[in-house]
Amino acid sequence: MSEFDIIKTYFSKYTKLQSDGKIFGVGDDCALFSSSYDKQIAISTDMLIEDRHFFHGTDPSSIGHKSLAVNLSDLSAMGANPIGCLLSIGIPAVDKKWLHSYAEGLYNISTKYSCPLIGGDTTRSNSKIIINITVFGELPYTESMKRHNAKIGDEIWVSGFLGEADIAYKMISNHINYDKEILDNTIIALERPNPRLNLGQNLLEIANAAIDISDGLIQDLKHILVASGVGADIFYSKIPVAKSIVSLSKNIIKKSILTGGDVYELCFTAPESKHDDIMKLSNKLNLNLSMIGIINNSSNLRIYDIQGQEIQYHSTGFDHFI
Amino acid sequence: MSEFDIIKTYFSKYTKLQSDGKIFGVGDDCALFSSSYDKQIAISTDMLIEDRHFFHGTDPSSIGHKSLAVNLSDLSAMGANPIGCLLSIGIPAVDKKWLHSYAEGLYNISTKYSCPLIGGDTTRSNSKIIINITVFGELPYTESMKRHNAKIGDEIWVSGFLGEADIAYKMISNHINYDKEILDNTIIALERPNPRLNLGQNLLEIANAAIDISDGLIQDLKHILVASGVGADIFYSKIPVAKSIVSLSKNIIKKSILTGGDVYELCFTAPESKHDDIMKLSNKLNLNLSMIGIINNSSNLRIYDIQGQEIQYHSTGFDHFI
Repeated sequence: MSEFDIIKTYFSKYTKLQSDGKIFGVGDDCALFSSSYDKQIAISTDMLIEDRHFFHGTDPSSIGHKSLAVNLSDLSAMGANPIGCLLSIGIPAVDKKWLHSYAEGLYNISTKYSCPLIGGDTTRSNSKIIINITVFGELPYTESMKRHNAKIGDEIWVSGFLGEADIAYKMISNHINYDKEILDNTIIALERPNPRLNLGQNLLEIANAAIDISDGLIQDLKHILVASGVGADIFYSKIPVAKSIVSLSKNIIKKSILTGGDVYELCFTAPESKHDDIMKLSNKLNLNLSMIGIINNSSNLRIYDIQGQEIQYHSTGFDHFI
Repeated sequence: MSEFDIIKTYFSKYTKLQSDGKIFGVGDDCALFSSSYDKQIAISTDMLIEDRHFFHGTDPSSIGHKSLAVNLSDLSAMGANPIGCLLSIGIPAVDKKWLHSYAEGLYNISTKYSCPLIGGDTTRSNSKIIINITVFGELPYTESMKRHNAKIGDEIWVSGFLGEADIAYKMISNHINYDKEILDNTIIALERPNPRLNLGQNLLEIANAAIDISDGLIQDLKHILVASGVGADIFYSKIPVAKSIVSLSKNIIKKSILTGGDVYELCFTAPESKHDDIMKLSNKLNLNLSMIGIINNSSNLRIYDIQGQEIQYHSTGFDHFI
């Protein structure tokens, strides 16, 4: 099976998907697209390596889903609307069953979020599967949702519920050991995260700063604080914990919701005057949005319990090189 | 050294490069850029894996050069002007000397062709270095240089001289054995290819179809023929052979110039009426441009020697899965 046969067999149906007439050409040395004249283009790229970012043996259609989802999550954190994506894939051998299932997972999420695959590179790797997806979308010219744009007095919000993906990851990698029921209820958060594109686009008129939680709430929020030159107080009891993990020990939960990665919910800041708009948006999108803290003029991130006592935490989230 | 330290230490100086004011944001979840209102965007991506696409031990600054050059070559084949690029890099460990040298090679070519690095992903790989670069540029709305746009009667052209990269590759991988002088004279073509961006942009008003020669002249030209539904006659004696390899055996030369990959010269077709314009362009750019054949209404690619006898050839160029 040649490189061109692989593309034709598994990935060419994507090229039929069109994204609002913005895709002009596929199959040449480059893919061609355009943005609206009054929009800027957001672009992001992520590399996933077998046994680093996903376990060998993971359902390939989940890998297909997640490999695009993590990129779409970056678009959502900018408030961008997807235009399309490119896939570079390195595989050690042509495993037809794997490719079919991977392509199916990718196709489904690509269709769901109108983000057609319009080009890429197919090559042979030495032993591990390597996936690199580049995604691009468009958004208005705005300072909204930039990391450096958090303002003193802003409320800090997170979408969804935290902790599940980290618990599932720790159970699969044998760092913690619970009933299989816990894994059954948390694995979907790890393997099939939902990019918050709709939320992101709605926040363009509302949020000052935003980031998607990929490395852990503390670490990602700190990117906003450092870039904006501000500090924050976080109210621990307001952080939304996923129902499936509330029965676990307090310390395990604390670690997972504060530092657990692979979440792909949005953390954003917005003026207090937007509080009611955000609650209305939560209703409209049927998506939990929790106010968890306030931006202040300190240079620290402090977390307080319900009695007003400061909670100690380890500041590091996930880092591939620590 | 953390992921963020690696980016800051080795790759952040790129963000100071600006590309005609088209770059709006770096360091957020996505990089932001825009194209001119009357232009479309060309985008391409390439994955390079250690011991597949480059040899372990290759000068890292050459890898830095080549990893962007092969992508810029794709832009050149569309006539696009670079805007910027993204780098995903997977490394098994933090080798400071390697990273410094790689980043230097990338920075130099990035500066030379005004293609700033505006984002990416840094991660840990298991054992091999993995590099994925995505490059994007802009070009006018045009059918020029599309693979499907070759016309019957078009002359077929190639830029530069062919064969060197293939000979160097075969010597390094011990498939053939010649004097070290041959390697010394050919290795630069393999490790430091020059993307033909200037040529590509000048061909927008001239060429019907174009492709960059990455997998071999025959294989890449066939992509044009198949996409355009045409055939071609090629005059073997007109194919420009690199001086450094003319002393080798006729069969070795034939194989290298017809099927050798990693060339990154452009192969393009243009109406006969543009012949003089192309010769003038060759003078203007100080770049050899050779007319090597004619597009016809057959469905075959035939190659003829100087006596008009058909030359047999193996049709396959480089394919990672054959």
